[in-house]
Amino acid sequence: MRLFNRLIFPDLEKGKSSYRRSKLFEIIFEADTKAGKVFDISILVLILISVALVMLESVKSVNAQFHDVLLILEWIITIIFSIEYLLRIYCVKNPLRYIFSFYGIIDLLSILPSFLGIFYPPTRGLSSIRILRLFRIVRIFNLTHFLQGGNTILVALYRSRAKIIMFLSFITLVVVVIGSMMYVVESKHPESAFSSIPISIYWAVVTITTVGYGDIAPVTGFGKFLSSVVMIIGYGVIAVPTGFVTMEAIKSKKDEILPRNTQACENCMDTVHADGAKFCKSCGHKLSIEKKVE
Amino acid sequence: MRLFNRLIFPDLEKGKSSYRRSKLFEIIFEADTKAGKVFDISILVLILISVALVMLESVKSVNAQFHDVLLILEWIITIIFSIEYLLRIYCVKNPLRYIFSFYGIIDLLSILPSFLGIFYPPTRGLSSIRILRLFRIVRIFNLTHFLQGGNTILVALYRSRAKIIMFLSFITLVVVVIGSMMYVVESKHPESAFSSIPISIYWAVVTITTVGYGDIAPVTGFGKFLSSVVMIIGYGVIAVPTGFVTMEAIKSKKDEILPRNTQACENCMDTVHADGAKFCKSCGHKLSIEKKVE
Amino acid sequence: MRLFNRLIFPDLEKGKSSYRRSKLFEIIFEADTKAGKVFDISILVLILISVALVMLESVKSVNAQFHDVLLILEWIITIIFSIEYLLRIYCVKNPLRYIFSFYGIIDLLSILPSFLGIFYPPTRGLSSIRILRLFRIVRIFNLTHFLQGGNTILVALYRSRAKIIMFLSFITLVVVVIGSMMYVVESKHPESAFSSIPISIYWAVVTITTVGYGDIAPVTGFGKFLSSVVMIIGYGVIAVPTGFVTMEAIKSKKDEILPRNTQACENCMDTVHADGAKFCKSCGHKLSIEKKVE
Amino acid sequence: MRLFNRLIFPDLEKGKSSYRRSKLFEIIFEADTKAGKVFDISILVLILISVALVMLESVKSVNAQFHDVLLILEWIITIIFSIEYLLRIYCVKNPLRYIFSFYGIIDLLSILPSFLGIFYPPTRGLSSIRILRLFRIVRIFNLTHFLQGGNTILVALYRSRAKIIMFLSFITLVVVVIGSMMYVVESKHPESAFSSIPISIYWAVVTITTVGYGDIAPVTGFGKFLSSVVMIIGYGVIAVPTGFVTMEAIKSKKDEILPRNTQACENCMDTVHADGAKFCKSCGHKLSIEKKVE
Repeated sequence: MRLFNRLIFPDLEKGKSSYRRSKLFEIIFEADTKAGKVFDISILVLILISVALVMLESVKSVNAQFHDVLLILEWIITIIFSIEYLLRIYCVKNPLRYIFSFYGIIDLLSILPSFLGIFYPPTRGLSSIRILRLFRIVRIFNLTHFLQGGNTILVALYRSRAKIIMFLSFITLVVVVIGSMMYVVESKHPESAFSSIPISIYWAVVTITTVGYGDIAPVTGFGKFLSSVVMIIGYGVIAVPTGFVTMEAIKSKKDEILPRNTQACENCMDTVHADGAKFCKSCGHKLSIEKKVE
Repeated sequence: MRLFNRLIFPDLEKGKSSYRRSKLFEIIFEADTKAGKVFDISILVLILISVALVMLESVKSVNAQFHDVLLILEWIITIIFSIEYLLRIYCVKNPLRYIFSFYGIIDLLSILPSFLGIFYPPTRGLSSIRILRLFRIVRIFNLTHFLQGGNTILVALYRSRAKIIMFLSFITLVVVVIGSMMYVVESKHPESAFSSIPISIYWAVVTITTVGYGDIAPVTGFGKFLSSVVMIIGYGVIAVPTGFVTMEAIKSKKDEILPRNTQACENCMDTVHADGAKFCKSCGHKLSIEKKVE
Repeated sequence: MRLFNRLIFPDLEKGKSSYRRSKLFEIIFEADTKAGKVFDISILVLILISVALVMLESVKSVNAQFHDVLLILEWIITIIFSIEYLLRIYCVKNPLRYIFSFYGIIDLLSILPSFLGIFYPPTRGLSSIRILRLFRIVRIFNLTHFLQGGNTILVALYRSRAKIIMFLSFITLVVVVIGSMMYVVESKHPESAFSSIPISIYWAVVTITTVGYGDIAPVTGFGKFLSSVVMIIGYGVIAVPTGFVTMEAIKSKKDEILPRNTQACENCMDTVHADGAKFCKSCGHKLSIEKKVE
Repeated sequence: MRLFNRLIFPDLEKGKSSYRRSKLFEIIFEADTKAGKVFDISILVLILISVALVMLESVKSVNAQFHDVLLILEWIITIIFSIEYLLRIYCVKNPLRYIFSFYGIIDLLSILPSFLGIFYPPTRGLSSIRILRLFRIVRIFNLTHFLQGGNTILVALYRSRAKIIMFLSFITLVVVVIGSMMYVVESKHPESAFSSIPISIYWAVVTITTVGYGDIAPVTGFGKFLSSVVMIIGYGVIAVPTGFVTMEAIKSKKDEILPRNTQACENCMDTVHADGAKFCKSCGHKLSIEKKVE
């Protein structure tokens, strides 16, 4: 990989190159410096534009009229994102670790569909993958302390994980049993939409969560009675455990632990470090010194 | 503006005029005196009648039959509101401040559509603007201590603002990702209503809030499975943060601060003053002395 | 009224008649004695049968086949209820007060439709009034300490009345504004179901409560966007105040006051008396001495 | 029954047989030993496969194509479950008590439909009974401490039982009254789907639980107004008692009592024993000594 870098920047001495890489790392991966903030906001705007483009492309009437404009804008964004992707690989000490990290894969998936589209016309599904660029927004917010509220919720969810798994298993059991029951009751009626057990389970989920599309609804008298019971009981079944999670959330509020700075390790990408940390807590690599801005 | 007043009431000496204005101000903007209460209730009744008229006008069968009656009643109300508007401008010390205040604009929008209708026939949308008269009710209740419960809720919402913004961003991210996912899964099916990503996002919102119109519903097996997962997870996603806001609301109850009197400053329209205040806390203008009724 | 009694029971001396009436009162209006309990349970069973009859009568296929059976059963129950009604009037000290009390009117409405049906064929609506017999169940449960849980909820609701009124006004304001907004946005589209402001307000209620029938759904792009916003915001708008009521309910639990005996005043029908009370707290009338059973 | 055992294992002495039975009991009914855990997981996997088969069988297109494969797999599973059932009968001290216990009946219902299918072709309803095998999963989880979260919920529900019964009676009363009211209002309209009182009650349940299929929706203006009121009030009616149950759940958390071991009595099947218990707390039968694994 270092060989690869030397091929691109052959005129740079190793020392200078290392300094430049360290500087670039700070701009691209951290948000402490002014340049880093500007970089993040530019990328944020580009992501939002790009997501809007993907959406507009999916609307047939818009795509028919502005196909060329959308295509050109899409390529401009793809090229910028490609350069950013290469720069990220360049300035990270351990490129493979970045490439196979969650955000590394998201970054690749953001640009791949456009390039693949050159060789064979892009299919709908493929080009929609670019919507995953949204997760790149999460990374930006992650760096800039915005996720404090979300963090509380995540801690709450994590603490309730045993109850949540239990709850999901329970809900699965309930909807399978109710769905099968309704299938037995309703499937004989000629006009019934309960054509198979999986479909009936889908109905049970739609009903118990109170979504109620109405694409499948009981037609027999007994089916209607049974679903009335399911609705009243089901309401409680799903509301009570939700109360539990909320309580856990309230309790977890007091001891929420938040990242206090935006330092990121160049070696292992760990972004949670103690204030004033000089070495990465995960791999021991030296961290660049944090400069407070804001 | 004083010139304007003198033109209308040329026979009044400045002292008398000033006293009349001060008297009028108390009746129109405050609710402490008997006359003020009578004025408020009259306006309240007129607003309710006027809103009912706007509603009835929109019902085609009613409009066809009683068009003339509705028109005459509408003009009577418009003229009364116009006089009230002019009186408000007259008795306020700083008319421009009132005209460009929230309630000033609402008051203007309440009467404007009828007058504009003289020059060219009123379009549906334009005449419906008059429904904004409803906000005039809010002003009346605001003056008469009715908003205590609402105040608690607003304080709660304000305290949770960081979490609410976080939550709305999160929901937006979730519905965009789920909508795009469902678009990829469902759009190939010929009978599918998931015709574009924005439509699919609309479906995701309808589903995750458990509204479930059923105008768009998954038709493929995998689409149905995916939406079942979305419903169960989504229920929790939206219910947990609601619990947070409720908790904040409960906490905020203890320290709710309420307006204790109905005094309003003639100069800057500030309506929150300490009990027994003699000067406006915002601009230092002398307040009219409060007379306790009730 | 006493004359009327003497006409029916002419052989009884006044003393005996008074004792019989007092005895009857205890059986019919109280639930302390064994006879009183048996009476209550019999009436309860009759009410349930009668309500089932009214329901079956409304089902066309059942009514066509079993019309005669239903009619005969209905008349048997009507006659029993009529006798009970007359007995209630007979044994109460102040019959007019009973006749015009809530339960007195319910009792009359329970039997009236059948008698009126003799003179002219019963219309659907009229005979359905008999479903109000259900409220007679509430009276029975009221007497037998069953309403403890419900009482807590009622106390909670009563304590939150200011907030509930505030909340309902707020919801009304919100749905009127949202409905009008959607009317302006959607009504121009030829396929739109938003045909008038009242219909649009109905849609707003259906949406904000997450019921979502789907009989009215936005068809324009902007209408869909607007309703998405309404759904997400609306969810919070309606969920937060619900949390408040729950909190009030929890607080009210500690000081819930429950009726401790089943004594009822013969004179004024007041059923809430202190333990061991000998005189009615409302009218000073002597209460029959309570005999503890169970 | 002992005679039956001797007929199958005639070469075994009574002592050896008793030891083998005790050993088998530990494997099949308990989860403390390694063999017991392996047995449970194998059964769990088989149940899941079997439930998947029942579901696939109900999908017409799948059943048409893979009918033979599904039939063979179904028979393999049925035979394994039959052997397990006989082994359970064999190793339990009191076989009749097991056969007529909840899980004994479930075990029988799991295999019966397949055998009955030999004599006459299986009907849809009958073969769907096999979905009840799901409850066998509950037994497995019950033994292995997984139900801790669920236990808390059950304790909470049990503590709130008076309120829940009260609540369900109240909801029943509410939906019957609302349903009848809407029947009176809507049934005269020619396009109305409110064709009978039971159907209208079904509508009331669908509405008050906010499911809202839309198969039945008001068509008259007054009907729409009435249902708007029902929705707003109904939302509170159903949300407040849910809050109560949640509160009870929170309170019950502190004193939740959990089964601390997986011992099961060979005689009376009681599975809740104190830690280190040597005799069954219900029947005094000696318990096999628990061996801690994990």
